[in-house]
Amino acid sequence: MKFTNFDKTKSFKKLKKLAKQYEKFSLTEALDVVRVRGCTTALGGGLNYNWAAKKADNAIVAVLKELAEEQELIEKYKALVEGDVMNTGEKRKVLHHLTRGQLGGSVVEKGKNLGDFYAQELSRFSKFADDVHSGLIAGTTGKKFTTAIQIGIGGSDLGPRALYVALENWAQKKNRQKLAAKFISNVDPDDASAVTSSVNLEESLFVLVSKSGTTQETLANEIFVRNKLTKAGLKPEKHIVAVTSETSPLAHNPDYLDSFYIDDYIGGRYSSTSAVGGVILSLAFGGDVFKELLEGAHEADKAAFEPNIQNNAALLDALLGVWERNFLQYPVTAILPYSQALLRFPAHLQQLDMESNGKHVNRAGKKVDYHTGSVIFGEPGTNGQHSFYQLLHQGTDIVPLQFIGFKESQKEDDVELDGSNSQTKLKANLAAQIIAFVRGKKDPHANKEFDGGRPSSLIYGESLTPKALGALLAHFENKVMFQGFIWNLNSFDQEGVQLGKILTKKVLSGDSDDPALNEYVKLLGITS
Amino acid sequence: MKFTNFDKTKSFKKLKKLAKQYEKFSLTEALDVVRVRGCTTALGGGLNYNWAAKKADNAIVAVLKELAEEQELIEKYKALVEGDVMNTGEKRKVLHHLTRGQLGGSVVEKGKNLGDFYAQELSRFSKFADDVHSGLIAGTTGKKFTTAIQIGIGGSDLGPRALYVALENWAQKKNRQKLAAKFISNVDPDDASAVTSSVNLEESLFVLVSKSGTTQETLANEIFVRNKLTKAGLKPEKHIVAVTSETSPLAHNPDYLDSFYIDDYIGGRYSSTSAVGGVILSLAFGGDVFKELLEGAHEADKAAFEPNIQNNAALLDALLGVWERNFLQYPVTAILPYSQALLRFPAHLQQLDMESNGKHVNRAGKKVDYHTGSVIFGEPGTNGQHSFYQLLHQGTDIVPLQFIGFKESQKEDDVELDGSNSQTKLKANLAAQIIAFVRGKKDPHANKEFDGGRPSSLIYGESLTPKALGALLAHFENKVMFQGFIWNLNSFDQEGVQLGKILTKKVLSGDSDDPALNEYVKLLGITS
Repeated sequence: MKFTNFDKTKSFKKLKKLAKQYEKFSLTEALDVVRVRGCTTALGGGLNYNWAAKKADNAIVAVLKELAEEQELIEKYKALVEGDVMNTGEKRKVLHHLTRGQLGGSVVEKGKNLGDFYAQELSRFSKFADDVHSGLIAGTTGKKFTTAIQIGIGGSDLGPRALYVALENWAQKKNRQKLAAKFISNVDPDDASAVTSSVNLEESLFVLVSKSGTTQETLANEIFVRNKLTKAGLKPEKHIVAVTSETSPLAHNPDYLDSFYIDDYIGGRYSSTSAVGGVILSLAFGGDVFKELLEGAHEADKAAFEPNIQNNAALLDALLGVWERNFLQYPVTAILPYSQALLRFPAHLQQLDMESNGKHVNRAGKKVDYHTGSVIFGEPGTNGQHSFYQLLHQGTDIVPLQFIGFKESQKEDDVELDGSNSQTKLKANLAAQIIAFVRGKKDPHANKEFDGGRPSSLIYGESLTPKALGALLAHFENKVMFQGFIWNLNSFDQEGVQLGKILTKKVLSGDSDDPALNEYVKLLGITS
Repeated sequence: MKFTNFDKTKSFKKLKKLAKQYEKFSLTEALDVVRVRGCTTALGGGLNYNWAAKKADNAIVAVLKELAEEQELIEKYKALVEGDVMNTGEKRKVLHHLTRGQLGGSVVEKGKNLGDFYAQELSRFSKFADDVHSGLIAGTTGKKFTTAIQIGIGGSDLGPRALYVALENWAQKKNRQKLAAKFISNVDPDDASAVTSSVNLEESLFVLVSKSGTTQETLANEIFVRNKLTKAGLKPEKHIVAVTSETSPLAHNPDYLDSFYIDDYIGGRYSSTSAVGGVILSLAFGGDVFKELLEGAHEADKAAFEPNIQNNAALLDALLGVWERNFLQYPVTAILPYSQALLRFPAHLQQLDMESNGKHVNRAGKKVDYHTGSVIFGEPGTNGQHSFYQLLHQGTDIVPLQFIGFKESQKEDDVELDGSNSQTKLKANLAAQIIAFVRGKKDPHANKEFDGGRPSSLIYGESLTPKALGALLAHFENKVMFQGFIWNLNSFDQEGVQLGKILTKKVLSGDSDDPALNEYVKLLGITS
């Protein structure tokens, strides 16, 4: 395998030439029935990816295919799942795919089969969840647990929370909700205080998640929760389980009811399918539901091995994203799920994408001379239509759009008005927006004129089930991975979070020798 | 008053020249104690705006001052509050400031004093809330209302919801929470279904908000709720109040328990301080709390009249934003509140800013040749630090940051760990981040190196009270208004939302003659 900076590839030069020519590409002329039909690819979990409304055609796709081959994207993916050290900065394997199934050969380290290790933890926390549901495992007073509360931040919060919110309606409809779930993340004490005061502590089971066991926010919130439990006359060790690595201070520790393990090969933002997401989701919905989610993710992982890029949604999505970022020069992407259940999914993708590829050095630690990860934001439709879509339609910048939609609602609890139900209205809005962004509209009044030519893609499926959700999650993980390979980055470390931590410690210990920092400290009334 | 395109002003040309020179501006050299102390301006409600960490100095501020004078920003603000038709597209006055107090002369139209009208509605819904709290007004069965549920979308949802979430902890601490509040917005039927199934309908009071009375999503959700009430054996007309304009079909209608009025001079995204936000907030916390919020907003409105730009936070914030957008070429701004209570505040600002100034034509309907409104996104700190800050610190693009922080928590329920409480840790992180973004860090390993030079500003105060929140809200409204004046836009219409509505109607009535649209309709399984 060769690791080459993006701008040193032949396809980079070809795409750069093409970009000039594509300034005049008329998306509205290109978008016809044949294209909408032809540009659909299954991505796993019953979902499809459609890129008919992208500013690209067969000529572009042909060069993107060359790029995929030149940067050996599939080979690198294969190497990653086989256990190569793809996290070069931290010298670690990258094994989150293995939490949902085997894709290549076994990954063995010092005699330990890591696939077996993840499967064993899955089986352990699945059994644990069963025992909580049956009441075999109960709190201090013997009362059944009714609420599970995750304490974690970043990857230990955003992914698991987005997935929980996405499945809450589905679970209620299917009678699969076992426990309510809540989340404490921020070091802002109002966060922990609001959550703990909204539950019955006697019936609450906390899931403390920190791989290192040293995350400042999470440890502060643990102490907060322990104090509350103790004050309520409860035994903390009967109300907290830990999810951590085996080398952390939280591991094998009698202060916890039980502990479930991950390792250094599961990065925070890629950890939703490990015990980090698995414990809370199994407690909330049962281990079987979590396993369905893993199945969907595994399907998407398999689909991402397809060598023909036209049949590989994650690869195509990655390549088209790079085309837009580096050649059409669009610095932002919006995620627009037409599903209220995906309310927090854009916040998860924001971390996944921006933390993975928001880098200015390549995997060997050398500065790169091209743009990498873009800004990601989004809110559910139709809400966004009544908010920031104004800028998307008529602003001075073009923002590529990632729409997501489903044929059926989750709760199938609907109402008819003016000849259509709400789910139909929701979908009609989605279809209409894709076309409105592409075609625009002429108008004698310039303020009512829409330029059009604004590209989007669409992920769609029957309904948002655990399996579809797993596939959706894995699709974006794999897209981000492929983009990292194209840009020749290490998408699996996050050195950019370190400097703030160091300076925070200096402030808290009173060791800062930066007069301006000390002035901000005064201004915020910080006394240490 | 003259209305001139931004690029036709003298100061535009001056700033353009300066921009080249400021490419080399060293923020880390500039940022010292004197600057942190000197660059603070009160913005009302006890809050301060600090711009020490912006890439600007006295030379830039001097030209920005010329720009403010050349574009007659204060004069235009004055004209707006006095009732000039500043919403040129829709030929309407712009009077949201008047919902919180008188700033200029009375605004009278056809013999009606509009300030009196808004005050009368405030007094009416304040009394209504009192009667609900006392039980004088109750539901079908005579049981007291315990939950208020807003049905609205866009400006009828985002602002009121952000304000409610912001004050929930404060109200609980101060024993001011009267009713729980919930929100239904999306036409996705899962939204209304989830909310209605989580409450006791017998004790629920719905607040239906639509200025026109014709908003598709809101009417669909109204029918949804009416069905649920009827099925539960309750009388809908005893459980729904309307907030609308006097000319809408919802006005003076016996199908509602009561109706409260706004008019066409209160734009959706500027309506939080009218009955649109006032009814739900008064129901939740009492009319007195809402009036404190109005006081804070009024203070910020008054502060925005200060002619010396160094003492006018909203004006300075607006001008520095334009400097960054049009001359330093930063297309995105992040809103980073170090307060979990401000969780949904960035989503409100996203609408406020992107819907107001995401325009490519000037107020006279002519295309402009410069960038206008930027993309706005954000999440609370410290959560964001464990997510997208990687890109902010080490990505290939610079994103200006708007930090917000408070000395005290809302609930004052805190815990100590390693010598500091969580609120102190929160603030230490905030101070540390400002400095980390400015100074960066040299490192022999390029992946651990931070370029620095990444600008931010800070809004800070004692604690997030209703008054502080009102000032915060008004500060951003006024900032956006000033930026609209600078860019010579009409910030008060939203023609960009219309095209999608038209095409949606075509889909729903089966009238689309666009084959590609019809193909998307098939693909999403839309049957009309």
